[in-house]
Amino acid sequence: MKSTPVFLDTKPVSYVIGEKALGESLKLLKDFDRIIILVDENVQELCLPVFRRVLPQIEISGVICIQSGEDKKNLEQAAFIWEELTRLNVDKDALLVNLGGGVITDIGGFAAATFKRGMSFINFPTTLLGMVDAAIGGKTGVDFSGFKNQVGLFIDPLSVVVDPVFLKTLDAKQWQSGFAEVLKYGLIIDRDLWNILKGKRIKEIDNWNKIIVKAARDKIDIVKSDFLEKGIRKNLNFGHTIGHSFESYFLKTDNPITHGQAIAAGMICEAWLSQKTYDFDIEKLEEIVDMIDINFDRLEITEDLIPTFMDLMRQDKKVREGKLKFSLLKKIGKAIHHIEVNPGLVVDSLMFYMNKNS
Amino acid sequence: MKSTPVFLDTKPVSYVIGEKALGESLKLLKDFDRIIILVDENVQELCLPVFRRVLPQIEISGVICIQSGEDKKNLEQAAFIWEELTRLNVDKDALLVNLGGGVITDIGGFAAATFKRGMSFINFPTTLLGMVDAAIGGKTGVDFSGFKNQVGLFIDPLSVVVDPVFLKTLDAKQWQSGFAEVLKYGLIIDRDLWNILKGKRIKEIDNWNKIIVKAARDKIDIVKSDFLEKGIRKNLNFGHTIGHSFESYFLKTDNPITHGQAIAAGMICEAWLSQKTYDFDIEKLEEIVDMIDINFDRLEITEDLIPTFMDLMRQDKKVREGKLKFSLLKKIGKAIHHIEVNPGLVVDSLMFYMNKNS
Repeated sequence: MKSTPVFLDTKPVSYVIGEKALGESLKLLKDFDRIIILVDENVQELCLPVFRRVLPQIEISGVICIQSGEDKKNLEQAAFIWEELTRLNVDKDALLVNLGGGVITDIGGFAAATFKRGMSFINFPTTLLGMVDAAIGGKTGVDFSGFKNQVGLFIDPLSVVVDPVFLKTLDAKQWQSGFAEVLKYGLIIDRDLWNILKGKRIKEIDNWNKIIVKAARDKIDIVKSDFLEKGIRKNLNFGHTIGHSFESYFLKTDNPITHGQAIAAGMICEAWLSQKTYDFDIEKLEEIVDMIDINFDRLEITEDLIPTFMDLMRQDKKVREGKLKFSLLKKIGKAIHHIEVNPGLVVDSLMFYMNKNS
Repeated sequence: MKSTPVFLDTKPVSYVIGEKALGESLKLLKDFDRIIILVDENVQELCLPVFRRVLPQIEISGVICIQSGEDKKNLEQAAFIWEELTRLNVDKDALLVNLGGGVITDIGGFAAATFKRGMSFINFPTTLLGMVDAAIGGKTGVDFSGFKNQVGLFIDPLSVVVDPVFLKTLDAKQWQSGFAEVLKYGLIIDRDLWNILKGKRIKEIDNWNKIIVKAARDKIDIVKSDFLEKGIRKNLNFGHTIGHSFESYFLKTDNPITHGQAIAAGMICEAWLSQKTYDFDIEKLEEIVDMIDINFDRLEITEDLIPTFMDLMRQDKKVREGKLKFSLLKKIGKAIHHIEVNPGLVVDSLMFYMNKNS
């Protein structure tokens, strides 16, 4: 009886992933009489022309452009989308194409799923983070009242179309932001992926198509077996319990960091916790720390901020009855979830990150 | 491919209907550690004390009070509910009790289903309209940008608890508003119910418990077999295509009418259309008109408003490609849906309502 309402899309999602996926998506798109595209100003400039060029047959009935940025993933922008859909006289038979990064697919999925009680949408992620993470798994929503994703739904798109063609449009920060999640899949579920990546700098990697297909498939496998995050999907939180506290803290300063920077730092702390709690191999811990350090600068955090981070962790949606639960590593490619760690050890992991202990 | 995202609650809804249902609901409520109740100011005064008296064992962790009225079924009030749930530190394991009429169950269901991507809710309708219609069937949402239910979801509550104890709190208008829907069930699906009611004024009816159980069951049967309104659920629209145009028009005047008044008038027009289109028995048409006339005053509409009503009908969510589709009667207790009627005949039905033709 304690369980929450369950949303399930009765049809399985179709995924189209890899080079030429965009062109292949014509098969999905041509059944809709009306197609509306949601973008932000950056995507409109850099990616929408690619979409139009690859799919000249598709008549676009409207383009809705929202403001870019995680701080713009709010109810006001969802309302703007509903207003535009209304103004465009869109009915439930039309399709919303979410073309963009995580903010676009999160907010666009939520807006579509609630417009006239549900219109179809397809995600076309354009960032590395979107391709391997945000666009997949049915988590939609907006930030509200200071909390991330406070209002939203679990609702799958009709399809997710992942074409690495859009990677060309990314800047260094966007590469880095998605890369942390790619590393995470290697660590929690895909040892083979980790072995492809380890020791390399982002710029030294050339087989991105293969990496994206692997990482996206890792995410799909996990969410398929646990859509509502009751169990194994929690493994995706590796690096995120501590990482989110960094992200939230820096979001309110003049130097906000990317999700990837936050999660990379969080993974160092939580890999250390894995070593202390589950005897995770100490040499592998060093391998992880080295890999993150060659790709990410350390965050500038100091001891006096520790209570702030601990407070932020306790406010997390994942915390129940005040207890800090972690997803940790048993070995490379194998995670376990729902591990309670005592606060003292969490503090020690932050000290480790700051090189104040070993 | 053209179909829209599908929301299905994987668990069947439990319905508790009839005298003493409120007390019986203890079994459903006692599994939740935290219970929040959503009300409006009228319900807070008249019905919440009844809830507390019948269920003294239930500890209420918070009461959220929104403003009453169909014109308050908006996004601002949904946002207020999300703010209050946030302020009360509600997590997904808590329960939202929607105690009230259709506005409360519509907006409360939407707010709960989207709070932290879905918390549980149970509907406790307190109006006749809520008991036999609005609280049942999973349609939730808010009005937006001038359109009814423009933003919302198909999402079932965990349970619907219908106790006629709350009927005592209703005024004459509220009785009338729900009564039109009760009559509708008689006409579209439940000849037995029609025979119980026909020829009687609302005040002459005494077996309300039986009537509510029958009407609620009629609605449950229909929505169970067609949750997403692809087919038979459309039969529920009898009287509503024309009725909604009356409702929308008067909503913007100084003399708004109730949903029931609008639908009662719409049923006169659409029963006439049934007679013209499907040879619906002319004596039965008279029976319907008489029954509505002894319970509802005729709306004050004039010929010059006909184009306005026709325009409003064409803006309806149910209209596709500009064609007016109706659910009409074949006989008492039997409806058919998706009937295209030509606009000239619709105009004639409005003239019939105004006694300008026969």
